[in-house]
Amino acid sequence: MEFSSKLLEKAVNEISQLPGIGKRTALRLVLHLLKQPKEQTVFLSQALLKMREEIKFCSNCHNLSDVTICEICSNKNRDHKIICVVEDVRDVMAIENTGQYRGVYHVLGGKISPIDGVGPSQLNINSLVSKVKSGAVSEVVFALSSTMEGDTTNFYIYKQIQESNIITSTIARGISVGDELEYADEVTLGRSILHRIPFENEFKNN
Amino acid sequence: MEFSSKLLEKAVNEISQLPGIGKRTALRLVLHLLKQPKEQTVFLSQALLKMREEIKFCSNCHNLSDVTICEICSNKNRDHKIICVVEDVRDVMAIENTGQYRGVYHVLGGKISPIDGVGPSQLNINSLVSKVKSGAVSEVVFALSSTMEGDTTNFYIYKQIQESNIITSTIARGISVGDELEYADEVTLGRSILHRIPFENEFKNN
Ligand SMILES: [Zn+2]
Ligand SMILES: [Zn+2]
Repeated sequence: MEFSSKLLEKAVNEISQLPGIGKRTALRLVLHLLKQPKEQTVFLSQALLKMREEIKFCSNCHNLSDVTICEICSNKNRDHKIICVVEDVRDVMAIENTGQYRGVYHVLGGKISPIDGVGPSQLNINSLVSKVKSGAVSEVVFALSSTMEGDTTNFYIYKQIQESNIITSTIARGISVGDELEYADEVTLGRSILHRIPFENEFKNN
Repeated sequence: MEFSSKLLEKAVNEISQLPGIGKRTALRLVLHLLKQPKEQTVFLSQALLKMREEIKFCSNCHNLSDVTICEICSNKNRDHKIICVVEDVRDVMAIENTGQYRGVYHVLGGKISPIDGVGPSQLNINSLVSKVKSGAVSEVVFALSSTMEGDTTNFYIYKQIQESNIITSTIARGISVGDELEYADEVTLGRSILHRIPFENEFKNN
């Protein structure tokens, strides 16, 4: 791409550093900003800068937060003895959105992935293990995605906390509510049969 | 979406104002920036702000430029009597990229589109007509996309300059070089037969 303006080129190059955004898309976004009032670009830039400079990780659960201890961790109506282990803030948002969980979270910040060079020491694992060993926890719910990396991470943590006298559980995998069985993938369908639950339990939750 | 941080929410909301970027994608981009060094966010914000505040439209051809008269308009080796009419800077970049064009450009800044509320007065049409009427132009090449809006815009301009004694042309439409006929759309194939060119012309250009 040959640009008629260095300012344009630089803006396009910076935007196309973002994952999944190529040069063409970046150019389209920049041209859009040029058609909008200047304020939109000012607000966008300021929001990104302010976010990057001021956002915190909750010192207890490592979730993104505007304050030192996040709203969930400082909420006395939640059950602080149940900890749900998730990868990042998106998982917290997804689970919160269901309105079905009243425990708290522990955000690992990723999954163990030797291919991507992510080892246990780069994740928030030690603080979780300490919490469990302190005796303040009754249950750890693993909610990482069920990939090789997710399973590896679950198992790594499980080994370190298994001698503590707590419940460990994992979120149920199965056919999505409303999905046709014939379109489900084999592994999910297999798991959903293997881990079938008493009919009355299902009935109770609806 | 319920956010654990207002800073995060604001950044996501600003990014998702951009066309084609939903909240989920915006959140993914913000989380990416949080994993990168702070400098990346600083550079991105600064490049956008600087571009939006300092970029100019060439006072002659209306292309994006860092200076008052763009490089193409101030290049004495180009033929300033041939003007190629395009929609925006992307078209200029695409044509420049071919290395086949030695004239100059006129960037309209859009196409006439009543549905989107874009009329002739919002486009750089008057300055093109004046240029033609000043007698400094020998040929106008229409290179807008061949949509209803493109055709309308071409015709609107054509009507205003047809009495000037100049050549008007339009870029050739046809089957892409290397494409199989059977996969071409009917309209394009139809046009490419209708506007067939002498065989020796094709031969000369290769
Ligand atoms: Zn917290
Ligand atoms: Zn120019």
